[in-house]
Amino acid sequence: MTSVATPTLQASALADLLVAADLRGHFTHGLNRLEMYVNDMVKKVCAGDATPVIIKESVSTALVDGKNGLGPVVGNFCMDLAIQKAKQTGVGWVCAKGSNHYGIAGWYAMTASKQGLMVESSLNSDCAIRTNPIALAAPGEKGDDFVLDMATSVVSGGKVEVACVKGEDVPAGWALDRDGAPTTNAERALDGYLLPLGGDETHSGYKGFGLGMMVEIFCGILTGAPYGSNIRDWTRTDRPADLSQCFVAVDPSFFAPGFEGRMTDLMNHCRNMEPEAPQKPVLVAGDPERLHMRKVEQEGGITYHINQINNLWKLAKYLDVTPLQP
Amino acid sequence: MTSVATPTLQASALADLLVAADLRGHFTHGLNRLEMYVNDMVKKVCAGDATPVIIKESVSTALVDGKNGLGPVVGNFCMDLAIQKAKQTGVGWVCAKGSNHYGIAGWYAMTASKQGLMVESSLNSDCAIRTNPIALAAPGEKGDDFVLDMATSVVSGGKVEVACVKGEDVPAGWALDRDGAPTTNAERALDGYLLPLGGDETHSGYKGFGLGMMVEIFCGILTGAPYGSNIRDWTRTDRPADLSQCFVAVDPSFFAPGFEGRMTDLMNHCRNMEPEAPQKPVLVAGDPERLHMRKVEQEGGITYHINQINNLWKLAKYLDVTPLQP
Repeated sequence: MTSVATPTLQASALADLLVAADLRGHFTHGLNRLEMYVNDMVKKVCAGDATPVIIKESVSTALVDGKNGLGPVVGNFCMDLAIQKAKQTGVGWVCAKGSNHYGIAGWYAMTASKQGLMVESSLNSDCAIRTNPIALAAPGEKGDDFVLDMATSVVSGGKVEVACVKGEDVPAGWALDRDGAPTTNAERALDGYLLPLGGDETHSGYKGFGLGMMVEIFCGILTGAPYGSNIRDWTRTDRPADLSQCFVAVDPSFFAPGFEGRMTDLMNHCRNMEPEAPQKPVLVAGDPERLHMRKVEQEGGITYHINQINNLWKLAKYLDVTPLQP
Repeated sequence: MTSVATPTLQASALADLLVAADLRGHFTHGLNRLEMYVNDMVKKVCAGDATPVIIKESVSTALVDGKNGLGPVVGNFCMDLAIQKAKQTGVGWVCAKGSNHYGIAGWYAMTASKQGLMVESSLNSDCAIRTNPIALAAPGEKGDDFVLDMATSVVSGGKVEVACVKGEDVPAGWALDRDGAPTTNAERALDGYLLPLGGDETHSGYKGFGLGMMVEIFCGILTGAPYGSNIRDWTRTDRPADLSQCFVAVDPSFFAPGFEGRMTDLMNHCRNMEPEAPQKPVLVAGDPERLHMRKVEQEGGITYHINQINNLWKLAKYLDVTPLQP
């Protein structure tokens, strides 16, 4: 990133985020996306050196202009601001416009959770209401935490991309083709539409659709930036993305004492439930990522697929920088 | 309600809520539930004359003790408090413990939406993580609004009850039986478990489970009241319910101007999309209820099923009050 004119401070923020995604096992949102961020800098559609500014502010709220900066730069700025306000008034609600893709939503939620705060974070996505992710994190005892980080569609686009690359079908109930017909063909699904969480009407797909709109309301509608179908297409990188993001921090100490103990108790109650299959214990949101982090620790590093290593070598060659060393 | 020692003020609050549910077509949460509220008063497990008190407060937050009052009494108190705080600081986040069933979550959300505020409202439910509903309302122009009011399970328990009464099967993917096996038998489903929104693992049921836990965190975990499996069983009415509720109001005027115009534009964009079937136009959250309200207006009143009328007559006889007049 520094080789394409991103100052070290901003580049580091992005690096931390991408590595955290890979560490947690979300490879679709980690180093895999580096090329996209590089291209945004090369095409000058993202301002790598930008610093966000506050447009409007109250003790508990802020509207921020990201000034087209890198997603994590805008995201960290807003999350820190929301945390600061939550510590003073119990709640901090900060929305940003003029931002870019900010990686895993859980990153920001975890930042606050580490400080003992409860957080919601969400991002609108290009092209009508697509994956519109939402994350919620809440701290338990001794570093334990609840981290829900989910697309409001049945699955994220990344899972369909992976099926495409592997030449596999996708399960029924994930997607429609371009003409609106259900499909299990991964390429047709990628060219079509993801179903909202719930799927068809019988299984309450309108709830996933409603949650996706809720995210849009928290983002583009509150900030006044593009929303819904006004948002730039994911593939058209000839102009700034102008994405919106929303960060809400809540300080549990403004409510009943003992929040962290109750969180751990609730999570352990779920984890200790008798599983349907003995080899698949009940997990709560954040546990699959915790298991992946333990695996990385045991292996002494993150294991990447050879295709990804090759892509990063190609990228290093293109940028004329030292490639990742084995 | 007044015949079972509920003061008029509190009884009126409940009446308004129940009629609003029926008017919106949510008959499972309307007058149909009157008998339950009456029984709570007869058994003295609910304090019909209680007035909620604020335990802890900041400019933007409050922790309220509902003093075991009627759900709508506690709910209206908290929603009004959250609205008042949102008008001052942009956000009001109010949680109550010591409450009872509060009817349709959308009622509270709409109260604030009518004043131009955006709202979230949620309620934990008895017996581990069940339906844990969440509602979000946001105002559009000229009285138009977005009202999402949903159980975080695939469907609410009421839909399974209705299938039971009609002697019909429920669709696959709604429920498990008591032993954890998938079932389409409505009675076994009612005796078993509702699946979380999304359904099985392939279709991301863990997201619905995570959203259900989010609601629990906003309610029982923040307030310090019973949560998860500590909550009183729905059918065991020998002790107070001690339910928790959470109300969040946001004043959009603290963010970018023109919120209501953008809301209407987003909703109309969705409504004007080409539907899959011409006779089923695209609706946004709140539209089905709007259509029902229009039907009620055209018919000059709410049309109840004969069984419900009979039940209300029986209840009137039991209470020795004047029955509903035709």
